[in-house]
Amino acid sequence: MKSILIKNVFFENRKRNILIEKGRFKSLDAADGAVARLVIDATGKAILPALYNTHTHTPMTLLRGYADDMPLERWLTNYVWPYENNMTDDDFGRGSNLAAKEMVSSGTVFFNEMYFGIHKSVDAAVVSGMRAAIGLSVLGGHKHTLSADMIDAMEDLKDPTGGRICFTVAPHSVYTVPPEEIKKCAQVARRKGLRIHIHCAETKTEVANCVRDYGMRPVELLDSLGVLGPDVILAHCVQVTEKEVDILAERQAVISHCPCSNMKLGSGRFPYELMIKAGCRITLGTDGASSGNNLDLREAMKFAALLAKSAGDPVLLPAEQVFDWATRAGAEAFGIDAGEIRVGKLADCLLVDLGNVRMQPCHNLISNFVYSADSSCIDAVICDGNIIYNRI
Amino acid sequence: MKSILIKNVFFENRKRNILIEKGRFKSLDAADGAVARLVIDATGKAILPALYNTHTHTPMTLLRGYADDMPLERWLTNYVWPYENNMTDDDFGRGSNLAAKEMVSSGTVFFNEMYFGIHKSVDAAVVSGMRAAIGLSVLGGHKHTLSADMIDAMEDLKDPTGGRICFTVAPHSVYTVPPEEIKKCAQVARRKGLRIHIHCAETKTEVANCVRDYGMRPVELLDSLGVLGPDVILAHCVQVTEKEVDILAERQAVISHCPCSNMKLGSGRFPYELMIKAGCRITLGTDGASSGNNLDLREAMKFAALLAKSAGDPVLLPAEQVFDWATRAGAEAFGIDAGEIRVGKLADCLLVDLGNVRMQPCHNLISNFVYSADSSCIDAVICDGNIIYNRI
Repeated sequence: MKSILIKNVFFENRKRNILIEKGRFKSLDAADGAVARLVIDATGKAILPALYNTHTHTPMTLLRGYADDMPLERWLTNYVWPYENNMTDDDFGRGSNLAAKEMVSSGTVFFNEMYFGIHKSVDAAVVSGMRAAIGLSVLGGHKHTLSADMIDAMEDLKDPTGGRICFTVAPHSVYTVPPEEIKKCAQVARRKGLRIHIHCAETKTEVANCVRDYGMRPVELLDSLGVLGPDVILAHCVQVTEKEVDILAERQAVISHCPCSNMKLGSGRFPYELMIKAGCRITLGTDGASSGNNLDLREAMKFAALLAKSAGDPVLLPAEQVFDWATRAGAEAFGIDAGEIRVGKLADCLLVDLGNVRMQPCHNLISNFVYSADSSCIDAVICDGNIIYNRI
Repeated sequence: MKSILIKNVFFENRKRNILIEKGRFKSLDAADGAVARLVIDATGKAILPALYNTHTHTPMTLLRGYADDMPLERWLTNYVWPYENNMTDDDFGRGSNLAAKEMVSSGTVFFNEMYFGIHKSVDAAVVSGMRAAIGLSVLGGHKHTLSADMIDAMEDLKDPTGGRICFTVAPHSVYTVPPEEIKKCAQVARRKGLRIHIHCAETKTEVANCVRDYGMRPVELLDSLGVLGPDVILAHCVQVTEKEVDILAERQAVISHCPCSNMKLGSGRFPYELMIKAGCRITLGTDGASSGNNLDLREAMKFAALLAKSAGDPVLLPAEQVFDWATRAGAEAFGIDAGEIRVGKLADCLLVDLGNVRMQPCHNLISNFVYSADSSCIDAVICDGNIIYNRI
């Protein structure tokens, strides 16, 4: 039986032996004599939950640094779209595989994908050993409309890994897909037991156009269509009112906050105060490398925590809370029974090098990981009980 | 004669051989047959200028993660000051050495220090091979006043490295040192040919108290004392008016912008628009690990560039400009003839791994380094013509 014994690892203030069996944590305090197929001596390492990236576009990793520091319209029209129009199926694969490697090496074991060429995204998850939710992208007035063919194709969607991969229906946004089609997407998704993934309230322009065209703001519009629920993942939600935040909390919709992308594109500051107070379900994403430039969710934690405080309140969004968004909350949003180092949970975890200069001294492990570490501190990554990255 | 030949290194869009002799760049396009005592095959690496950290407190690295996410007053009074009061000379050394290791491994070759136990900071620079400006800290109403003894002691300050280390006079701030003593500090510094290093306009409270006590804001007060000039390094300058920004530009004083510290402590947003428009001399710092948590100046570049844009203008502070602040401008501020890869310049540089997933693809090297890289991308660091870090 496949099993891993992680010996002498630092967990909850002391050294332990941690046993993983059948992909789950079997014991957090195994005897020295415990046996396993694979034994790791993790002396000098700490174990932490792995990270869950709840919004990205992996093939866009090929556009990293392709166009930066310019107005959104020019960036999209003159650079991003022309580049994307020339991307081949092979390019999708190259981008997704590069993205998966980068995510794994920075401690991420799951990505929530929205792009085209989904079989390439599936392949990247299969090959890297990651978990993934792969979105079936729907763009209105485009070849990617929600056709009968597309609905039929959903029947053929298979998870070749036996549990690591699921699928979502991903209408792009309220500014690219007509309301009736978004509504239909949600209905189809619910009939098939799939989650819904959509961009929402990313920019002021999106909101203004939504109000102009439909007389409602994006969250209000989605709610009026019956789309919002605990099975919906909304990327961004930056330009939202207090009323919209209350709707999001009420519906228990999942928000994917992407701090680097929002900052770099000047989209606005995520309303941390309102979201936290209302009890929203907040998770973290990197967005694509085209806007965020990398897919490092640990870095996104630091950006979120500092952006929250930067408005004047140094107590807002402590390290432990943003770490919870990136781990437990991210897993929970996709029904993955993981995100914590706990007996019975799926074994998704990191081994972090306490000897790395950035981790010293260790007054507070979570603070060091959120505020000081970088990918050089991550020595091993385990997903679903398999070692998918190892520098030990 | 000591010399290094860096072969096959990527520079300005093609592979070159770069020759370093007597600590300076001798040729940026040496023949394949060029000889040197040390030859590095840098195939797959790019060369970039190294980074200059213009504001830090290295012994405070021991307080990394010791106290986070709390109001400034409680943080200082209940945590930082009691901890510091118990720090020994050995602690200063441990903190400075740890800091130097961390800075070097993230590409920094210079630090501008303000703390106590300066011989330990000097040692850290000597041992690590870094450059440093070591401040003689002055705190009013404290044992560290600017006494005759202290002035005499300046005569004994020696750079044991023959060129890498200089000293500054460092009155802490307008809220801890009386104006007359700051004025005297500046006079003594100028008589001895030393630069001046001071905190300035970091928080709203500092400004309010300054106005209450002296009828002027901090920059105005320093200017009225004749302190401001091109030989002054002012850390922070967050809470400044347009008038103060104009004074800073007029005096050509050097500003050390510390984005992570300012964000984490909720001090306010650096006035990028005003500072850039006025033509201020802007450089980058990390502040101490007690507030910024790490000493990674590359990360500080990304925080500055994104914080600038986050207010709504995605064109503000492009990657090339913030990279210039962290390299050329930082060196220039301290009269170090470096900061660029150019024949005749002091050989301070980095070899960056283009094969690292975070550096791929390479549409734009500077964009990748600023927005996507982390310390795992840095393979070697050269300071003053010596290899001080090497993972090749």
